[in-house]
Amino acid sequence: MTNYQRLEARFRQINRLSDVRSIIGWDEAVVMPEGASPYRNDAMAELGVVIQNLVSSPEVGEWIAGAETEGEWQTANLREMRRIFIENTAVPAELNQRATVARMNCEQQWRKLRGENNWKAFLPYLQEVLDLTRQTTAELRKHNGLSAYDTALSQFSPGLSTGAVDSLFGELKSFLPGMIQDVVAKQANETCLQPEGVFPMAAQKALGLELMAAVGFSFKNGRLDESHHPFCGGNPRDVRITTRYNEGEFVSSLMGVLHETGHALYEQHLPEEWLTQPVGAACGMSVHESQSLFMEMQVCRSHEFLTFAAPLIRKHMAPFVKNPESLETENLVKLVSRVKPGYIRVDADEVTYPAHIILRFEIERDLMEDRWPLAELPGVWNEKMKSYLGLSTLGNDKDGCMQDVHWPSGAFGYFPAYTFGAVIAAQLFAKMQTELPGVRNDIAAGHFETVRGWLNKNIWSQGTKVHTMETVAAAAGPLSASAFKAHLRARYL
Amino acid sequence: MTNYQRLEARFRQINRLSDVRSIIGWDEAVVMPEGASPYRNDAMAELGVVIQNLVSSPEVGEWIAGAETEGEWQTANLREMRRIFIENTAVPAELNQRATVARMNCEQQWRKLRGENNWKAFLPYLQEVLDLTRQTTAELRKHNGLSAYDTALSQFSPGLSTGAVDSLFGELKSFLPGMIQDVVAKQANETCLQPEGVFPMAAQKALGLELMAAVGFSFKNGRLDESHHPFCGGNPRDVRITTRYNEGEFVSSLMGVLHETGHALYEQHLPEEWLTQPVGAACGMSVHESQSLFMEMQVCRSHEFLTFAAPLIRKHMAPFVKNPESLETENLVKLVSRVKPGYIRVDADEVTYPAHIILRFEIERDLMEDRWPLAELPGVWNEKMKSYLGLSTLGNDKDGCMQDVHWPSGAFGYFPAYTFGAVIAAQLFAKMQTELPGVRNDIAAGHFETVRGWLNKNIWSQGTKVHTMETVAAAAGPLSASAFKAHLRARYL
Repeated sequence: MTNYQRLEARFRQINRLSDVRSIIGWDEAVVMPEGASPYRNDAMAELGVVIQNLVSSPEVGEWIAGAETEGEWQTANLREMRRIFIENTAVPAELNQRATVARMNCEQQWRKLRGENNWKAFLPYLQEVLDLTRQTTAELRKHNGLSAYDTALSQFSPGLSTGAVDSLFGELKSFLPGMIQDVVAKQANETCLQPEGVFPMAAQKALGLELMAAVGFSFKNGRLDESHHPFCGGNPRDVRITTRYNEGEFVSSLMGVLHETGHALYEQHLPEEWLTQPVGAACGMSVHESQSLFMEMQVCRSHEFLTFAAPLIRKHMAPFVKNPESLETENLVKLVSRVKPGYIRVDADEVTYPAHIILRFEIERDLMEDRWPLAELPGVWNEKMKSYLGLSTLGNDKDGCMQDVHWPSGAFGYFPAYTFGAVIAAQLFAKMQTELPGVRNDIAAGHFETVRGWLNKNIWSQGTKVHTMETVAAAAGPLSASAFKAHLRARYL
Repeated sequence: MTNYQRLEARFRQINRLSDVRSIIGWDEAVVMPEGASPYRNDAMAELGVVIQNLVSSPEVGEWIAGAETEGEWQTANLREMRRIFIENTAVPAELNQRATVARMNCEQQWRKLRGENNWKAFLPYLQEVLDLTRQTTAELRKHNGLSAYDTALSQFSPGLSTGAVDSLFGELKSFLPGMIQDVVAKQANETCLQPEGVFPMAAQKALGLELMAAVGFSFKNGRLDESHHPFCGGNPRDVRITTRYNEGEFVSSLMGVLHETGHALYEQHLPEEWLTQPVGAACGMSVHESQSLFMEMQVCRSHEFLTFAAPLIRKHMAPFVKNPESLETENLVKLVSRVKPGYIRVDADEVTYPAHIILRFEIERDLMEDRWPLAELPGVWNEKMKSYLGLSTLGNDKDGCMQDVHWPSGAFGYFPAYTFGAVIAAQLFAKMQTELPGVRNDIAAGHFETVRGWLNKNIWSQGTKVHTMETVAAAAGPLSASAFKAHLRARYL
């Protein structure tokens, strides 16, 4: 066996055990009885140690150093193996251990202190996570030669740089605050009916399943279940998405299901022949989010999609709705495109969402680069919220800088992926339309093969052959905000 | 660390990864989408290799050889570790591999050829499994000094011997064939109404859940789901039982649920402080089966239990039954104690079941000891069926010697556990009654704490501190068939 073949065999092992881990993770969120929790934590930690040992053992480093490859997939695979090996070995075990404990403590405190709106008590926990994240990042930087924040970004979206984020977000900042005001003013004069009634979970689920199947989700290789926080889990040939039902309102859950279906379609179409190797995995969180937002924002909130879906929505929901006119296509289109600035990121609409992300990016970049003390976070947050969305969070940290789990869990550098996803999705959709001029008609007719074919060729089948920016560029040219801007204008103004 | 402490740490690791494996096994049977199957098989095999390496690595043997223990639990734990180590190392890897492949092939062929009633084509596959089972058993015998069939028995029920089985089954044979005829004659003159109607799955499930909770199943540490073959899986703090619903008939599924609940209660009450160690596990399949049959046969098919349960059965089933008189207590009692000799073991009632097992024991003992050629199996089976149950299987091997998955899967030595379970259950119940004279009244009143307390003290809390026969003897004296015989007489004659 060559060194490269040894690496493939090792990463195949790692991949299989990671598949087990992902199913066990789904189980914990969806079906595990609560009394099992402490035992399950021990079991997951043990499995984590096994996987970690397989990734980081010294022979892997030797094989990587001595490996030779032919062909672009193999070469890209070796590049990913090297990246994973460094991420798993660069940080001394003792530091890693301290960081893990700090994150667990901080998350635990966050669950309690957020409800109490208690920033003062929360600060030292978050400070420790930030300090240790800076230290672990410093260890990684010895190997990758990147800045602290570039290192943070590349852990979630390989190839993303502070410069690229700054430039894209600069474009967005130039028009978004004004556009938000225009859209809000325009919508103030529109009537939009909220469907009223009690919509049983079973009916909501049946509708979700029908639309998932329509857009192409394979139930032979996946499931839909319920969990407290919706997610897309499992593994590429066993993709498990979840949602949460509110019987008073069905549109949010439905759009959530279609969002997760976008993630799922990406996973279900990753290249079969590279599925057990790093290069066969999805290309980071920005591209992953682009696929969920492509499905949710570009396809499913469009007039064309709702033309197709409205009869199905009525089929499932008409028996329960008190105001049937709310289920007419034109009203549904309005319903899924309401814009309202608010405090909470996860509740934000497509137009105001980027403002939440830009704010977080500017703050986490500064924090990672140590530009101002963490104690100033509530003040900085408040100023930026006022400036971007016209809302004050003074004294309301619960709905301000304490609202997200990302920083308590050490995920600095994750947030830009959400807005990169939205912008990439718009650019991909625009490009697809120039190549397939009839695609909007296909969507209105409920024919999604053309959309799937295009995404499969340009994104899904590519795995991680190249990184974020090159993946987008190869599919739809260099990334910019212009398609996203045009999309927002067309839909909202 | 002492050698014993090293062993505890190693077996704790093994236990945690085995917990993961059991949950993944449940997932495969209950929720996995079918397209995931080949990937899941690879993942399970990989996890199996990891666990196998941890069990069988040379240092484990060295630690065992050099370990010293104090206290009965530690000593028993070391004994179990040694037993597990030998079971995992005695057979050369190459032979083990061949045996695994032969079993997989034979099981696969069995699924197809049983339906075709094709013994001739099946014979060579079963022959190979039998040959390789004899060879692997021969390797184990070098370490344990037991006979071939004793070795087979002890893999499923540690401490069970051919002599003990022969003696107990001899007792049963002396009265069962005659008793079966008497019971059938007596029941021929009784009327027993089958509940008629369509009983929705949801109603059946609700009834099952209510009765599970009543007898003490902890839903904080377990679940009820559906699968093709009912089983009790998961792990002691996450016990997952399954059933199958037939909307035309609810009693079988209900009794199945209560049977699995018996297994589950044992698991849920294994000793907390030894849960991660071999000695904290259930004491083999005979004792495990005694717990499910204690619940199903001794408790739940009793007049007292049905006095308590009948109102709950009516609460859930009355809306769907066409003949409400069939849900009256006296009729339900008759319904759960019908006796009818039949071909199929898994459909057999309490009185005829032992005949199916005695037949299988006599055959598999002979096969393991190589007393006659496997080609004679259909003839031997037919003779014994005629003699014990008055039924001929001539030309009907599908419902004869090809009906069970046990032999194709290499599980020679398992069958006696079923009837040992039934006999142990009767003896435990009789002993409990002498110690707790009011226990039948408690059952009729729906108070199961006394039953649980007694089982917990005598069986559940004991783990594998001693083996099958000593466990029974400590709880209820030396095992014999007399309590079982008295139980059958009291219920059926």
